[in-house]
Amino acid sequence: MTAKMKTWAYEDFVEGASLDLGSKLVSAAEIVEFATEFDPQPMHLDEEAGRASILGGLAASGWHTCSMFMRMLCDAFLLDSTCQGAPGVDQVKWKKPVLAGDKLTGTLLVVAKRLSKSKPQLGLVTMRSELFNQRGESVFELENSVMFLTRDAAGRPA
Amino acid sequence: MTAKMKTWAYEDFVEGASLDLGSKLVSAAEIVEFATEFDPQPMHLDEEAGRASILGGLAASGWHTCSMFMRMLCDAFLLDSTCQGAPGVDQVKWKKPVLAGDKLTGTLLVVAKRLSKSKPQLGLVTMRSELFNQRGESVFELENSVMFLTRDAAGRPA
Repeated sequence: MTAKMKTWAYEDFVEGASLDLGSKLVSAAEIVEFATEFDPQPMHLDEEAGRASILGGLAASGWHTCSMFMRMLCDAFLLDSTCQGAPGVDQVKWKKPVLAGDKLTGTLLVVAKRLSKSKPQLGLVTMRSELFNQRGESVFELENSVMFLTRDAAGRPA
Repeated sequence: MTAKMKTWAYEDFVEGASLDLGSKLVSAAEIVEFATEFDPQPMHLDEEAGRASILGGLAASGWHTCSMFMRMLCDAFLLDSTCQGAPGVDQVKWKKPVLAGDKLTGTLLVVAKRLSKSKPQLGLVTMRSELFNQRGESVFELENSVMFLTRDAAGRPA
Protein backbone atom coordinates (compact mmCIF):
# COMPACT_ATOMS: atom_id res chain seq x y z
CA MET A 1 0.00 0.00 0.00
CA THR A 2 1.13 3.52 -0.76
CA ALA A 3 0.99 5.94 2.15
CA LYS A 4 -1.41 8.67 1.08
CA MET A 5 -1.90 11.71 3.29
CA LYS A 6 -5.55 12.04 4.21
CA THR A 7 -7.15 15.47 4.55
CA TRP A 8 -8.70 14.80 7.97
CA ALA A 9 -6.42 13.58 10.77
CA TYR A 10 -6.96 13.91 14.53
CA GLU A 11 -5.40 17.40 14.61
CA ASP A 12 -7.87 18.74 12.04
CA PHE A 13 -10.90 18.40 14.30
CA VAL A 14 -11.48 21.56 16.34
CA GLU A 15 -13.69 21.57 19.43
CA GLY A 16 -16.80 23.62 18.75
CA ALA A 17 -16.43 23.42 14.97
CA SER A 18 -19.40 22.31 12.94
CA LEU A 19 -19.35 20.33 9.68
CA ASP A 20 -21.91 20.05 6.90
CA LEU A 21 -23.01 16.47 6.14
CA GLY A 22 -24.65 17.23 2.79
CA SER A 23 -28.06 15.88 1.88
CA LYS A 24 -29.84 12.62 1.09
CA LEU A 25 -33.18 12.03 -0.63
CA VAL A 26 -34.97 9.02 0.88
CA SER A 27 -36.92 6.95 -1.63
CA ALA A 28 -39.76 4.52 -0.93
CA ALA A 29 -37.83 1.79 -2.77
CA GLU A 30 -34.79 2.20 -0.49
CA ILE A 31 -36.96 2.12 2.63
CA VAL A 32 -38.63 -1.12 1.54
CA GLU A 33 -35.35 -2.71 0.40
CA PHE A 34 -33.61 -2.07 3.72
CA ALA A 35 -36.63 -3.16 5.75
CA THR A 36 -37.08 -6.35 3.75
CA GLU A 37 -33.60 -7.44 4.73
CA PHE A 38 -33.19 -6.04 8.25
CA ASP A 39 -36.43 -4.77 9.80
CA PRO A 40 -39.53 -6.24 8.12
CA GLN A 41 -42.12 -4.55 10.34
CA PRO A 42 -45.24 -3.54 8.36
CA MET A 43 -44.75 0.26 8.74
CA HIS A 44 -41.37 -0.03 7.00
CA LEU A 45 -42.69 -2.20 4.15
CA ASP A 46 -46.03 -0.81 3.14
CA GLU A 47 -47.46 2.71 2.69
CA GLU A 48 -50.90 1.79 4.03
CA ALA A 49 -49.48 0.02 7.09
CA GLY A 50 -47.24 3.04 7.67
CA ARG A 51 -50.21 5.42 7.54
CA ALA A 52 -52.09 3.22 10.02
CA SER A 53 -49.11 3.25 12.43
CA ILE A 54 -48.00 6.04 14.76
CA LEU A 55 -45.33 6.88 12.14
CA GLY A 56 -47.99 8.22 9.74
CA GLY A 57 -46.55 6.91 6.47
CA LEU A 58 -44.04 4.55 4.87
CA ALA A 59 -41.19 5.17 7.31
CA ALA A 60 -37.53 4.20 7.27
CA SER A 61 -36.38 1.74 9.91
CA GLY A 62 -34.44 3.60 12.59
CA TRP A 63 -31.43 1.48 11.67
CA HIS A 64 -31.83 2.55 8.05
CA THR A 65 -31.67 6.18 9.21
CA CYS A 66 -28.48 5.34 11.15
CA SER A 67 -27.05 3.71 8.02
CA MET A 68 -27.97 6.63 5.75
CA PHE A 69 -26.37 8.96 8.31
CA MET A 70 -23.21 6.84 8.15
CA ARG A 71 -23.08 7.18 4.39
CA MET A 72 -23.50 10.97 4.66
CA LEU A 73 -20.62 10.99 7.17
CA CYS A 74 -18.47 8.89 4.82
CA ASP A 75 -19.12 11.17 1.87
CA ALA A 76 -18.69 14.38 3.88
CA PHE A 77 -15.20 13.59 5.19
CA LEU A 78 -14.77 10.17 6.78
CA LEU A 79 -13.47 8.41 3.65
CA ASP A 80 -10.84 11.13 3.35
CA SER A 81 -9.77 10.81 7.00
CA THR A 82 -7.50 8.68 9.17
CA CYS A 83 -10.58 7.09 10.81
CA GLN A 84 -9.82 3.88 12.71
CA GLY A 85 -13.40 3.02 13.61
CA ALA A 86 -15.47 3.63 16.72
CA PRO A 87 -15.99 1.64 19.92
CA GLY A 88 -19.72 2.27 19.88
CA VAL A 89 -22.43 4.88 20.13
CA ASP A 90 -23.40 6.82 23.23
CA GLN A 91 -26.89 7.71 22.17
CA VAL A 92 -29.24 7.60 19.21
CA LYS A 93 -32.53 9.52 19.15
CA TRP A 94 -35.14 8.76 16.51
CA LYS A 95 -37.04 11.99 17.08
CA LYS A 96 -39.46 12.01 14.15
CA PRO A 97 -40.33 9.54 11.39
CA VAL A 98 -38.19 9.62 8.25
CA LEU A 99 -40.77 9.13 5.49
CA ALA A 100 -40.54 8.22 1.80
CA GLY A 101 -39.76 11.36 -0.18
CA ASP A 102 -38.05 13.16 2.70
CA LYS A 103 -34.85 15.06 1.97
CA LEU A 104 -32.41 14.81 4.86
CA THR A 105 -29.64 17.28 5.60
CA GLY A 106 -27.11 16.91 8.37
CA THR A 107 -24.66 18.73 10.58
CA LEU A 108 -21.98 17.50 12.93
CA LEU A 109 -20.57 19.31 15.94
CA VAL A 110 -17.12 18.46 17.36
CA VAL A 111 -17.90 18.27 21.09
CA ALA A 112 -14.54 17.18 22.49
CA LYS A 113 -11.26 15.49 21.58
CA ARG A 114 -8.45 13.79 23.43
CA LEU A 115 -5.39 11.70 22.63
CA SER A 116 -5.41 8.07 23.75
CA LYS A 117 -3.23 7.52 26.82
CA SER A 118 -2.15 4.02 25.82
CA LYS A 119 -1.77 4.74 22.07
CA PRO A 120 -0.48 8.32 21.54
CA GLN A 121 -0.77 7.98 17.75
CA LEU A 122 -4.55 7.68 18.17
CA GLY A 123 -7.10 10.31 19.21
CA LEU A 124 -10.76 10.11 20.12
CA VAL A 125 -13.10 12.77 18.69
CA THR A 126 -16.55 13.06 20.28
CA MET A 127 -19.19 14.16 17.80
CA ARG A 128 -22.83 15.15 18.07
CA SER A 129 -24.66 14.78 14.76
CA GLU A 130 -28.14 15.78 13.74
CA LEU A 131 -30.33 15.15 10.69
CA PHE A 132 -33.18 17.42 9.58
CA ASN A 133 -35.99 16.91 7.09
CA GLN A 134 -37.04 19.31 4.32
CA ARG A 135 -39.21 21.23 6.80
CA GLY A 136 -36.19 21.88 9.02
CA GLU A 137 -37.46 19.50 11.70
CA SER A 138 -34.80 17.61 13.63
CA VAL A 139 -35.47 13.91 13.00
CA PHE A 140 -32.33 12.19 14.30
CA GLU A 141 -29.54 12.79 16.79
CA LEU A 142 -26.47 10.72 17.46
CA GLU A 143 -23.53 11.15 19.78
CA ASN A 144 -20.41 9.03 19.66
CA SER A 145 -16.64 9.03 19.72
CA VAL A 146 -14.59 8.10 16.67
CA MET A 147 -10.88 7.15 16.57
CA PHE A 148 -8.48 8.98 14.22
CA LEU A 149 -4.76 8.61 13.70
CA THR A 150 -2.64 11.70 14.25
CA ARG A 151 -1.20 13.31 11.15
CA ASP A 152 2.30 12.11 12.07
CA ALA A 153 1.18 8.53 12.58
CA ALA A 154 -0.79 8.54 9.31
CA GLY A 155 2.10 9.96 7.29
CA ARG A 156 4.66 7.51 8.64
CA PRO A 157 4.85 4.25 6.60
CA ALA A 158 3.73 1.23 8.64
CA MET B 1 -57.48 -4.56 8.75
CA THR B 2 -58.39 -7.56 10.83
CA ALA B 3 -57.36 -7.38 14.47
CA LYS B 4 -55.04 -10.32 15.07
CA MET B 5 -53.88 -11.07 18.58
CA LYS B 6 -50.10 -10.99 18.74
CA THR B 7 -48.20 -13.38 20.98
CA TRP B 8 -46.05 -10.70 22.62
CA ALA B 9 -47.79 -7.72 24.22
CA TYR B 10 -46.49 -5.44 26.98
CA GLU B 11 -47.74 -7.79 29.73
CA ASP B 12 -45.73 -10.73 28.35
CA PHE B 13 -42.33 -9.18 29.09
CA VAL B 14 -41.11 -10.13 32.56
CA GLU B 15 -38.33 -8.21 34.29
CA GLY B 16 -35.26 -10.42 34.57
CA ALA B 17 -36.40 -12.81 31.85
CA SER B 18 -33.99 -13.63 29.08
CA LEU B 19 -34.86 -14.42 25.45
CA ASP B 20 -32.95 -16.33 22.78
CA LEU B 21 -32.32 -14.32 19.58
CA GLY B 22 -31.32 -17.29 17.42
CA SER B 23 -28.28 -17.21 15.19
CA LYS B 24 -26.98 -15.53 12.03
CA LEU B 25 -24.11 -16.55 9.75
CA VAL B 26 -22.30 -13.48 8.39
CA SER B 27 -21.07 -13.83 4.82
CA ALA B 28 -18.35 -11.82 3.08
CA ALA B 29 -20.83 -10.95 0.32
CA GLU B 30 -23.30 -9.44 2.80
CA ILE B 31 -20.56 -7.42 4.51
CA VAL B 32 -19.42 -5.95 1.20
CA GLU B 33 -22.98 -5.32 -0.02
CA PHE B 34 -23.95 -3.38 3.10
CA ALA B 35 -20.69 -1.44 3.16
CA THR B 36 -20.91 -0.52 -0.52
CA GLU B 37 -24.20 1.21 0.15
CA PHE B 38 -23.77 2.63 3.64
CA ASP B 39 -20.20 2.52 4.94
CA PRO B 40 -17.62 2.20 2.13
CA GLN B 41 -14.51 2.27 4.33
CA PRO B 42 -11.79 -0.07 3.01
CA MET B 43 -11.87 -2.53 5.95
CA HIS B 44 -15.55 -3.24 5.21
CA LEU B 45 -15.02 -3.71 1.46
CA ASP B 46 -11.84 -5.71 1.02
CA GLU B 47 -10.26 -8.67 2.81
CA GLU B 48 -6.70 -7.37 2.43
CA ALA B 49 -7.59 -3.87 3.66
CA GLY B 50 -9.42 -5.48 6.58
CA ARG B 51 -6.37 -7.55 7.53
CA ALA B 52 -4.20 -4.40 7.40
CA SER B 53 -6.63 -2.55 9.71
CA ILE B 54 -7.02 -2.89 13.47
CA LEU B 55 -10.09 -5.08 12.75
CA GLY B 56 -7.88 -7.89 11.43
CA GLY B 57 -10.03 -9.06 8.52
CA LEU B 58 -13.00 -8.23 6.31
CA ALA B 59 -15.24 -6.79 9.02
CA ALA B 60 -18.90 -5.82 9.07
CA SER B 61 -19.69 -2.13 9.48
CA GLY B 62 -20.89 -1.50 13.03
CA TRP B 63 -24.19 -0.34 11.53
CA HIS B 64 -24.45 -3.63 9.65
CA THR B 65 -24.08 -5.46 12.97
CA CYS B 66 -26.86 -3.27 14.41
CA SER B 67 -29.02 -4.10 11.39
CA MET B 68 -28.34 -7.85 11.61
CA PHE B 69 -29.20 -7.67 15.32
CA MET B 70 -32.49 -5.96 14.40
CA ARG B 71 -33.36 -8.79 12.01
CA MET B 72 -32.58 -11.37 14.69
CA LEU B 73 -34.89 -9.45 17.06
CA CYS B 74 -37.63 -9.35 14.40
CA ASP B 75 -37.41 -13.07 13.76
CA ALA B 76 -37.17 -14.00 17.45
CA PHE B 77 -40.37 -12.23 18.54
CA LEU B 78 -40.74 -8.63 17.40
CA LEU B 79 -42.79 -9.38 14.27
CA ASP B 80 -45.20 -11.36 16.45
CA SER B 81 -45.52 -8.56 19.01
CA THR B 82 -47.47 -5.35 19.55
CA CYS B 83 -44.27 -3.32 18.99
CA GLN B 84 -44.88 0.38 18.27
CA GLY B 85 -41.26 1.33 17.60
CA ALA B 86 -38.58 2.82 19.79
CA PRO B 87 -37.60 6.42 20.57
CA GLY B 88 -33.90 5.62 20.21
CA VAL B 89 -31.00 3.68 21.63
CA ASP B 90 -29.27 4.33 24.94
CA GLN B 91 -25.99 2.67 24.10
CA VAL B 92 -24.31 0.53 21.46
CA LYS B 93 -20.97 -1.17 22.07
CA TRP B 94 -19.01 -2.64 19.16
CA LYS B 95 -16.78 -4.74 21.38
CA LYS B 96 -14.99 -6.95 18.85
CA PRO B 97 -14.91 -7.09 15.05
CA VAL B 98 -17.62 -9.14 13.32
CA LEU B 99 -15.72 -10.88 10.53
CA ALA B 100 -16.74 -12.70 7.37
CA GLY B 101 -17.64 -16.29 8.28
CA ASP B 102 -18.59 -15.50 11.88
CA LYS B 103 -21.70 -17.11 13.31
CA LEU B 104 -23.53 -14.77 15.66
CA THR B 105 -25.89 -15.82 18.42
CA GLY B 106 -27.84 -13.46 20.63
CA THR B 107 -29.63 -13.08 23.91
CA LEU B 108 -31.88 -10.36 25.27
CA LEU B 109 -32.50 -9.50 28.91
CA VAL B 110 -35.63 -7.64 30.00
CA VAL B 111 -34.16 -5.02 32.33
CA ALA B 112 -37.22 -2.99 33.27
CA LYS B 113 -40.73 -2.13 32.14
CA ARG B 114 -43.25 0.59 32.85
CA LEU B 115 -46.55 1.81 31.49
CA SER B 116 -46.60 5.21 29.80
CA LYS B 117 -48.16 7.88 32.03
CA SER B 118 -49.67 9.84 29.16
CA LYS B 119 -50.78 6.80 27.09
CA PRO B 120 -51.83 3.95 29.42
CA GLN B 121 -52.36 1.58 26.46
CA LEU B 122 -48.60 1.75 25.79
CA GLY B 123 -45.70 0.36 27.79
CA LEU B 124 -41.97 0.83 27.55
CA VAL B 125 -39.76 -2.27 27.88
CA THR B 126 -36.05 -1.67 28.50
CA MET B 127 -33.88 -4.39 26.98
CA ARG B 128 -30.20 -5.22 27.11
CA SER B 129 -29.11 -7.35 24.17
CA GLU B 130 -25.83 -9.05 23.42
CA LEU B 131 -24.36 -10.85 20.41
CA PHE B 132 -21.62 -13.51 20.60
CA ASN B 133 -19.43 -15.06 17.94
CA GLN B 134 -18.76 -18.78 17.42
CA ARG B 135 -15.99 -18.65 20.04
CA GLY B 136 -18.43 -17.35 22.64
CA GLU B 137 -16.84 -13.90 22.64
CA SER B 138 -19.20 -11.00 23.25
CA VAL B 139 -18.98 -8.79 20.14
CA PHE B 140 -21.93 -6.41 20.52
CA GLU B 141 -24.10 -4.91 23.24
CA LEU B 142 -27.12 -2.71 22.93
CA GLU B 143 -29.50 -1.20 25.44
CA ASN B 144 -32.72 0.51 24.53
CA SER B 145 -36.39 0.86 25.35
CA VAL B 146 -39.09 -0.37 22.98
CA MET B 147 -42.80 0.54 23.02
CA PHE B 148 -45.45 -2.19 23.08
CA LEU B 149 -49.24 -1.97 23.22
CA THR B 150 -50.94 -3.66 26.15
CA ARG B 151 -52.84 -6.83 25.38
CA ASP B 152 -56.17 -5.05 25.89
CA ALA B 153 -55.23 -2.18 23.59
CA ALA B 154 -53.99 -4.55 20.90
CA GLY B 155 -57.12 -6.74 21.05
CA ARG B 156 -59.50 -3.81 20.87
CA PRO B 157 -60.42 -2.76 17.30
CA ALA B 158 -59.13 0.74 16.45
